[in-house]
Amino acid sequence: MIRRAAVDQPPNNTRYDEKENVLTTSTWKDKALFTPGPLTTSRTVKQAMLRDLGSRDGEFIAIVRDVRERLVRLAEVDIDTHTTVLMQGSGTFGLEAVLATCVPRGKKLLCAINGAYGRRMAAIGRTLGIDVVELSYAEDAPIVPADIEKALAEDADIAMVTCCHCETTSGILNPIAEVGAMVQAAGRDFYVDAMSSFGAIDTNVAEMGIDYLVSSANKCIEGVPGFSFCVAKLDKLLACEGNARSISLDLVAQYKGLESNGQFRFTPPTHAILAFHQALLELEEEGGVAGRGARYRANHEIIAAGMTAMGFRRYLKPELQAPIITSFYYPDDPNFDFTKFYSLLAERGYVIYPGKVGDADCFRIGNIGRLFPNDMRDLLSAVSDVLAQMDVRLKGVA
Amino acid sequence: MIRRAAVDQPPNNTRYDEKENVLTTSTWKDKALFTPGPLTTSRTVKQAMLRDLGSRDGEFIAIVRDVRERLVRLAEVDIDTHTTVLMQGSGTFGLEAVLATCVPRGKKLLCAINGAYGRRMAAIGRTLGIDVVELSYAEDAPIVPADIEKALAEDADIAMVTCCHCETTSGILNPIAEVGAMVQAAGRDFYVDAMSSFGAIDTNVAEMGIDYLVSSANKCIEGVPGFSFCVAKLDKLLACEGNARSISLDLVAQYKGLESNGQFRFTPPTHAILAFHQALLELEEEGGVAGRGARYRANHEIIAAGMTAMGFRRYLKPELQAPIITSFYYPDDPNFDFTKFYSLLAERGYVIYPGKVGDADCFRIGNIGRLFPNDMRDLLSAVSDVLAQMDVRLKGVA
Repeated sequence: MIRRAAVDQPPNNTRYDEKENVLTTSTWKDKALFTPGPLTTSRTVKQAMLRDLGSRDGEFIAIVRDVRERLVRLAEVDIDTHTTVLMQGSGTFGLEAVLATCVPRGKKLLCAINGAYGRRMAAIGRTLGIDVVELSYAEDAPIVPADIEKALAEDADIAMVTCCHCETTSGILNPIAEVGAMVQAAGRDFYVDAMSSFGAIDTNVAEMGIDYLVSSANKCIEGVPGFSFCVAKLDKLLACEGNARSISLDLVAQYKGLESNGQFRFTPPTHAILAFHQALLELEEEGGVAGRGARYRANHEIIAAGMTAMGFRRYLKPELQAPIITSFYYPDDPNFDFTKFYSLLAERGYVIYPGKVGDADCFRIGNIGRLFPNDMRDLLSAVSDVLAQMDVRLKGVA
Repeated sequence: MIRRAAVDQPPNNTRYDEKENVLTTSTWKDKALFTPGPLTTSRTVKQAMLRDLGSRDGEFIAIVRDVRERLVRLAEVDIDTHTTVLMQGSGTFGLEAVLATCVPRGKKLLCAINGAYGRRMAAIGRTLGIDVVELSYAEDAPIVPADIEKALAEDADIAMVTCCHCETTSGILNPIAEVGAMVQAAGRDFYVDAMSSFGAIDTNVAEMGIDYLVSSANKCIEGVPGFSFCVAKLDKLLACEGNARSISLDLVAQYKGLESNGQFRFTPPTHAILAFHQALLELEEEGGVAGRGARYRANHEIIAAGMTAMGFRRYLKPELQAPIITSFYYPDDPNFDFTKFYSLLAERGYVIYPGKVGDADCFRIGNIGRLFPNDMRDLLSAVSDVLAQMDVRLKGVA
């Protein structure tokens, strides 16, 4: 008998019969996560982690290769010109790996910023000793390609331009295709933080002029957290050999390790990779980026319409909104208290996401992960119940 | 129906009934991993990953706190003077985090080296722009505390000394208590790579003069890979604020995030942490470090005796050997081919570990993870069968 720690844990509903080598689980119903991650994932994705594979095992090596090739195809390019490098750690580790490896020494990085993730990228660059030029915008405004064109024309030392595709801070979509065209025309490298968009929003990295794109296992592809990945233009990546400011985060060395014998240089998160492989199969089953994007848009529209009907105001203009995460202003009622609102929803099994956007008091509702239109409707009805319980009255527009 | 990829996969024996919300798995029998990691873990450790918890969830925060406190207690110290910081990524990421955060700018790092992991630490330091002093030894010889004492006396710029506890390259145990006493007396920081020892070999970090110790989720504590951890002397760690050469690997910022609200700065590998928490409970159930160490010693002794009886020669003198992983010379028989030997064992379900040690042709057998004396005996009998199949004749000493 294994003792449980003195934390608020559910009863262990899993039984394992050693003799029969059979596992039976009556699954614990965890809270649904309406957040940008960690997300609710499918049962089958989690089940893929019930194995211990050696990292040098032929089966594992084949799975890693398949994962890497599928990601190149998701980026709508070819393995002759592009590659995918998996990187241990959270998404931020992958983001840092590109800067640590691919910004030439003595050159500058231009960060176009309209949220916390853009600011973080600039901070990563500065901490690595890179000279960072910032172009900052309000958090409810998209970045402006012409500003980038001008900045590049004025400063020949800028070697790389970076911005978020979907800035998770507000949920805004940036015009990366237009930015990519400008950057490519100016002969610089374009690096996109596609953390919360890749897998659900069409991204042809060649057409969009993207040289490096980073996303994570635990966003729109619906794996579990544990690693991120970079889809890179192969010739550009290889030109960065020997430039890295870190051993762990050396993207070229990681690539060369994976290419030489299929193995990682350092222990990979084998279980998270098995889960991710299953998640990629389930993405394909759902109809790829188009199918997944359609479900997320349906989810988003239900939330946006339902919350608006109750009288919540959206932070972003609808035409700027990506169908990933939606920011709502706190209602203008003295009885509204976000902490209480959050807790009462959590008690009912719905986890939403806090988050001040700019100077505005907002909260956020994510609609990615293994969530369907019915989950959105359930959340809306819980929100309605909780507002009544808190005696918050909104001026509904419906 | 989810399609399977065209890779060498076992049939999917897992069925999930959406209606009943019940999972039934007749588990695939994976190969036993006689390696330094990824390891074979218990079924219950893997089952702990069948949940999606939000990283801001109260239950998850309590689990993280419990994990951190248990690790401080495993290091035989107190949370008033010491802390544990978890770090996303493999063990190497944790190792780099300490160097990136805790070596003062302009000061030197002394690396005492008797294997590949010691050399890697020196490479990490150099890549971070740190001035590294190396003290190198043969891979079958322990590091010598008096040499370190002398080096410190001669160079006042050396701020930190580092070495491995158990050098996984050969499996040798280094005299870290003696080194710690020297380093402490000289008023420098002592940093131990305890990757493959912590949890199975007694380590009182205060008595041993250790300021920073790094190990990983997927070694002697028998979790799954996905993060590492640093047990640190709190006052020393806090003195490093603002010094980090990386955002992702900033150990002080990570500590402050965890302390301020219990949350990680960047998405944690929630599933791997749930598995690790279960692994810590199972470690306690086994009798803590003493109980786990006893099982590993029993495993090691069966392997060492059995392989020696068959005529294999050990690379290390027995008195230098840690009970974690054992290096054996290739047998002196023209019919022996390591790749064939490895593959035939793998076909039978036993994964051993390659590895040239120094200039010697060796292979390694790990005895950590969820493996018991009977697994060791099974491996010995498979080795004996495979030798017969390959027509390799050894001069047995039995």
